[in-house]
Amino acid sequence: MTSVHIAGAGMVRFGKYDPAVTFETLAVDAARNALRDAGAHRRDIEAVFVGHVFGGPVAGQRVATDLGLGGRPVSNHENYCASGATALREAWMAIRAGLCDVALVIGAEKMTDRIKGGVTPDANDLDAQQGYVMTAGHALSARRYMHDHGATREQIAMVAVKNHAHSQHNPYAQYQRPVSLDEVVNARPIADPLGLLDCSPISDGAAAAVVCSAAGLKRLGLSVARPEVRAIGLVSGTLRAGLGDINEEDISRRAGLQAYDMAGIAPEDIDLVEMHDCFTIAEIVRLEGLGLVPKGQGAAWTAQGRTSIGGTLPVNPSGGLLSRGHPVGATGMAQVCELYWQLTGHAGQRQVDGARLGLAYCKGGTVSGTDGASVTTVVMSS
Amino acid sequence: MTSVHIAGAGMVRFGKYDPAVTFETLAVDAARNALRDAGAHRRDIEAVFVGHVFGGPVAGQRVATDLGLGGRPVSNHENYCASGATALREAWMAIRAGLCDVALVIGAEKMTDRIKGGVTPDANDLDAQQGYVMTAGHALSARRYMHDHGATREQIAMVAVKNHAHSQHNPYAQYQRPVSLDEVVNARPIADPLGLLDCSPISDGAAAAVVCSAAGLKRLGLSVARPEVRAIGLVSGTLRAGLGDINEEDISRRAGLQAYDMAGIAPEDIDLVEMHDCFTIAEIVRLEGLGLVPKGQGAAWTAQGRTSIGGTLPVNPSGGLLSRGHPVGATGMAQVCELYWQLTGHAGQRQVDGARLGLAYCKGGTVSGTDGASVTTVVMSS
Repeated sequence: MTSVHIAGAGMVRFGKYDPAVTFETLAVDAARNALRDAGAHRRDIEAVFVGHVFGGPVAGQRVATDLGLGGRPVSNHENYCASGATALREAWMAIRAGLCDVALVIGAEKMTDRIKGGVTPDANDLDAQQGYVMTAGHALSARRYMHDHGATREQIAMVAVKNHAHSQHNPYAQYQRPVSLDEVVNARPIADPLGLLDCSPISDGAAAAVVCSAAGLKRLGLSVARPEVRAIGLVSGTLRAGLGDINEEDISRRAGLQAYDMAGIAPEDIDLVEMHDCFTIAEIVRLEGLGLVPKGQGAAWTAQGRTSIGGTLPVNPSGGLLSRGHPVGATGMAQVCELYWQLTGHAGQRQVDGARLGLAYCKGGTVSGTDGASVTTVVMSS
Repeated sequence: MTSVHIAGAGMVRFGKYDPAVTFETLAVDAARNALRDAGAHRRDIEAVFVGHVFGGPVAGQRVATDLGLGGRPVSNHENYCASGATALREAWMAIRAGLCDVALVIGAEKMTDRIKGGVTPDANDLDAQQGYVMTAGHALSARRYMHDHGATREQIAMVAVKNHAHSQHNPYAQYQRPVSLDEVVNARPIADPLGLLDCSPISDGAAAAVVCSAAGLKRLGLSVARPEVRAIGLVSGTLRAGLGDINEEDISRRAGLQAYDMAGIAPEDIDLVEMHDCFTIAEIVRLEGLGLVPKGQGAAWTAQGRTSIGGTLPVNPSGGLLSRGHPVGATGMAQVCELYWQLTGHAGQRQVDGARLGLAYCKGGTVSGTDGASVTTVVMSS
């Protein structure tokens, strides 16, 4: 079975775009950047996979038509905040199954036209209707984490400080200025102890990659040294156990084990992580769930700079969801773009030294314990 | 690379359900019927693929949780009316890529809660806003077909008569009584020359299948003689050329060629067809586009009974979209269920004699020439 590689990657800057800038515009611009980066022509692309949540029916087909890729197999994939990574997984399967050698994968979302206030993934979620919305769930998680592990509010806030520090060097990030610990701790309260800067923003954006078999790389005239997609895990489950420890990240543990096993690696082999930090505390508990940081030590690691660029395990060199932004269907592919740039040594001032093996993690779904969520884990090597 | 088989199939009866019957209920009931038919237990299922349009974010995860399949990889796939078949294609790729041996594929839709009047796939479709809605497009197609080929209104109406005659023997069909040619021709006009009975209905429903590798069949204790999914074509393009012959079904031609090539067959090898007859005329022009019926002869073939059960090429023994019903995301999997029953000799009074090779065709997308649509072609052998 062929290996699967990223031949090129491209994004648009994440942010809040004017209503005149459509879902299709964002997706097309990101895709063109990826094609240019891969040195690929439209005629090289055999299939198109599009991840999104709010694009509406056959959104991917509209994007493909706008790209001049009409005629190709096009499919749309939705797994909420894991939609972009799920689209990548479908392309990865198609290539491994021998259906194509060169595919275009796009994650895109135009949220600012649709979302007012916070996101509630499932309108029928009874817990959310009673006030247990996303932020409330993560606030409980933070409070419990502080209680169980003696972590401080300031340590948790340092996730936002770190990720904003990283993204000042990311031209595609929604926010490109550092924030201080004081700013995070004293920001407008959202759900105690979390404030505005503990929460990822509502964003528009798109990210894309040209994904190839070994034969596809040759066809594009590229070296087989392009980063390899070694594994893509996908598991479902409840985001939080209805009973028991709210920070027992069983879904993350299972997603990690699936990817490590598939890639033939151990968690300690990983050099850098793009993590789904939809909230500051989420970065911490998910790193622990994946077995990348010892249980209860994630907040301390963050405060000590161990998850900063230059630390033992750099996490979110891109700025993550908190600072690069979080257009939900685009996020998984933005993580893949970042790993691609890091693994090829093209991450500029945010380059992680010795980046050879990276992991990208997304989690999508409802906050309550009664409905299903999904986690994707992408392992890429240089 | 392993062969891919249908180990079991299940549906719920298509129809207009009470608001209390949810998307999840329909999907779960269809899935349970498929599991029972395959003799599969929940523990056998390694991954879940769900096709739908209107189920909302992470609908498949909710269904998997309700089925007791929480934890498995779950993904949602949307290609409008081709969503169910697209989900099957993803499972087929996953099995061929070696990611799993036993998967559950569900197509489901609860439309009656959401759709009032006709369906307009793309709210931004300028042509549709000006009145060029689905039915208008197919009415133009019918009028042009009659002009070009000397076909009569009655010949086109015979598609509905035939498909209603077929589905009186299908316990899962929305309509189970025959309709006369007079009833079709004299039904309430919708878009001249098409009347109400030329149009597929708004429907609720779900259909599912257990899809296996050869090893998966063994694990379930089943014979490898279970029907094989030989090919799944997927192409995109415009539904109708903006200029030129409205009945030049280039997208169908390409989808057919892709599937025939992948399966190593010729169109004349096909014994029966499940066709996306969203409108009477659509069955005719799509059969011709696929090269299954000579250009311009589809209406005459229908009137002569050549596409009826017992004819040279039985089309829609299930009743098709016109009479089995058309819950959009479910239709592709309902076609697969029908081919499975036909190829295993379990189609009862609607059995096609000597059914060894079947083709199922779906088309999804907008009616205008400016946006993209997709066609799937599934080839299954006994």
